Amino acid sequence: MDAVDDADKLPETAINEVTSFFESAPPLTDAAETEICLKEFVDRNTSLSGINGKANRVVCVTSGGTTVPLEKQCVRYIDNFASGHRGAASTEYFLKAGYSVIFLYRRGGCQPFCSLLPDDPLLECFTVADDSIIEMDPLHAETVKKAITETRAAVADGILLKLPFTTIFEYLQILQLISASLRGLGPSAIFYLAAAVSDFYVPWESMALHKIQSASGPLDMRLAQVPKMLSVLRNEWAPMAFYISFKLETDKDILLAKADMALKKYKMHMVIANELSTRKEEVIVVTEQEKVTVRRDSTQAGAEVECPLVELVVDRHSAYIKKVDA
Amino acid sequence: MDAVDDADKLPETAINEVTSFFESAPPLTDAAETEICLKEFVDRNTSLSGINGKANRVVCVTSGGTTVPLEKQCVRYIDNFASGHRGAASTEYFLKAGYSVIFLYRRGGCQPFCSLLPDDPLLECFTVADDSIIEMDPLHAETVKKAITETRAAVADGILLKLPFTTIFEYLQILQLISASLRGLGPSAIFYLAAAVSDFYVPWESMALHKIQSASGPLDMRLAQVPKMLSVLRNEWAPMAFYISFKLETDKDILLAKADMALKKYKMHMVIANELSTRKEEVIVVTEQEKVTVRRDSTQAGAEVECPLVELVVDRHSAYIKKVDA
Repeated sequence: MDAVDDADKLPETAINEVTSFFESAPPLTDAAETEICLKEFVDRNTSLSGINGKANRVVCVTSGGTTVPLEKQCVRYIDNFASGHRGAASTEYFLKAGYSVIFLYRRGGCQPFCSLLPDDPLLECFTVADDSIIEMDPLHAETVKKAITETRAAVADGILLKLPFTTIFEYLQILQLISASLRGLGPSAIFYLAAAVSDFYVPWESMALHKIQSASGPLDMRLAQVPKMLSVLRNEWAPMAFYISFKLETDKDILLAKADMALKKYKMHMVIANELSTRKEEVIVVTEQEKVTVRRDSTQAGAEVECPLVELVVDRHSAYIKKVDA
Repeated sequence: MDAVDDADKLPETAINEVTSFFESAPPLTDAAETEICLKEFVDRNTSLSGINGKANRVVCVTSGGTTVPLEKQCVRYIDNFASGHRGAASTEYFLKAGYSVIFLYRRGGCQPFCSLLPDDPLLECFTVADDSIIEMDPLHAETVKKAITETRAAVADGILLKLPFTTIFEYLQILQLISASLRGLGPSAIFYLAAAVSDFYVPWESMALHKIQSASGPLDMRLAQVPKMLSVLRNEWAPMAFYISFKLETDKDILLAKADMALKKYKMHMVIANELSTRKEEVIVVTEQEKVTVRRDSTQAGAEVECPLVELVVDRHSAYIKKVDA
């Protein structure tokens, strides 16, 4: 187990590891374009007076899993099961609370306002009438209308910026660009890091160029640890922001210990502890002062745990801003 | 490299490997229900007189990649990039040619009749008018209408059965059920195996129960080879069917040699050789007698390589039925 990092002196080795990760990563396509989008988005939002008096508040919500390519001309990769539901649902509640949201999501993953839609909405929500007019299945009409109108409204109002990623390389490179654009907001920015980021990867320079051949015998693979980017983000890239990270475990016994450790090691403001089997019902919010269990309102159909969770985050974020500004 | 199997004497070890793979696999949910669906589907289709005189002809099209779980309570898995486009498009052309299709597809992968839709059809094809009526974007109207009507018609006519899978365990178990249901059709059945099936897996009994912990240091993984199920399918499960398998490589230099080897080793009737970078433009069809390059009609907008490919398959399948029946 690593020692707890000191906020002001990030170990030289950690920074070197991160630098060499980025140097060896395949270059991000559209990096310049993404930077411009981010700048415009942040500029517009800092000039807004804000709904509910939440001027300047921008949250970066990350969502879904990162892939780890096993070959350069990628045929195979390691992935994880994250659907991106947590991040997509949380985005909706942050928007409702008056925040602007940068939604950094896995390509093909869940989208905000779409969680109630069936798996294949086009084929399941629409029918073609005899006169060959497309009709909406009345069962799904309200859900479909809400998904389309709310997404379009948020994007048109300039309060939602959606940026997709697939690989661990893309994710960390875009996250760095986002941190650069939010750095100037100081404590008004939140990083709500719900994405399931790979712990292990194959360094680009040691990766097989072509598809790994299935000759006889088993396949042995050695994966390197992904450098602990969270330390660098927290301490170097945007040190004044409010940080929330997530711990998912299938083994309940180690969950809280690991959440506590992450809180201290990475100096998070909140760590959200999820157990795989109950994560849609409840989460435990771990802070320096307390552990709060947040449950979805089970008396209400369709109520999601992200609703009270984001409420709690917004409350603690407001207190943090006050403290920093005082 | 293994020796070429003898058709009549499948090595004892191959059968043992397959048996132990199935014995150790997590049981398939809905196995009984899937069997009933398959039986009904095949019964209905063998009683049809067939469009274009293709009575009794059923093709099992497999599509998309299988995942390999790395943990029992699966958080991480190995996947591959297959979109499922080849299988989805081919399904359309087989239906047009008068075949009934069992479409064994990766959950979330491409669907027949949907290849021209944008990534997120619901949000990109529809708008909400001021009077809060959902309207179709005229740009996409024809594509959307076609996708919905043709899919619904094929399912309603009972000529398309869609069965989803995610893991390698599900895929191989469902494929075995399909082979049992098609065995009775003899040479009228085709297996068109376009799915990208994992070569390596972690045997269920040796799999970590919980999420693999990222302690210090690199992660070493040993993956076992997936038993060569294709031999057992070909020789034992449905020995009279017509077999087409696919070889995808990124390295052009080894592609044809590997396709030839697969043709002989697994006694395929056709092997479709794809190179990753050009696979949407052309494929090489390898048979015992010849190598035919099949190209999409580049003079026609939207023409797909699957159109002439399926035409060729249907032609050779007809010849095969004649030969067997003679």
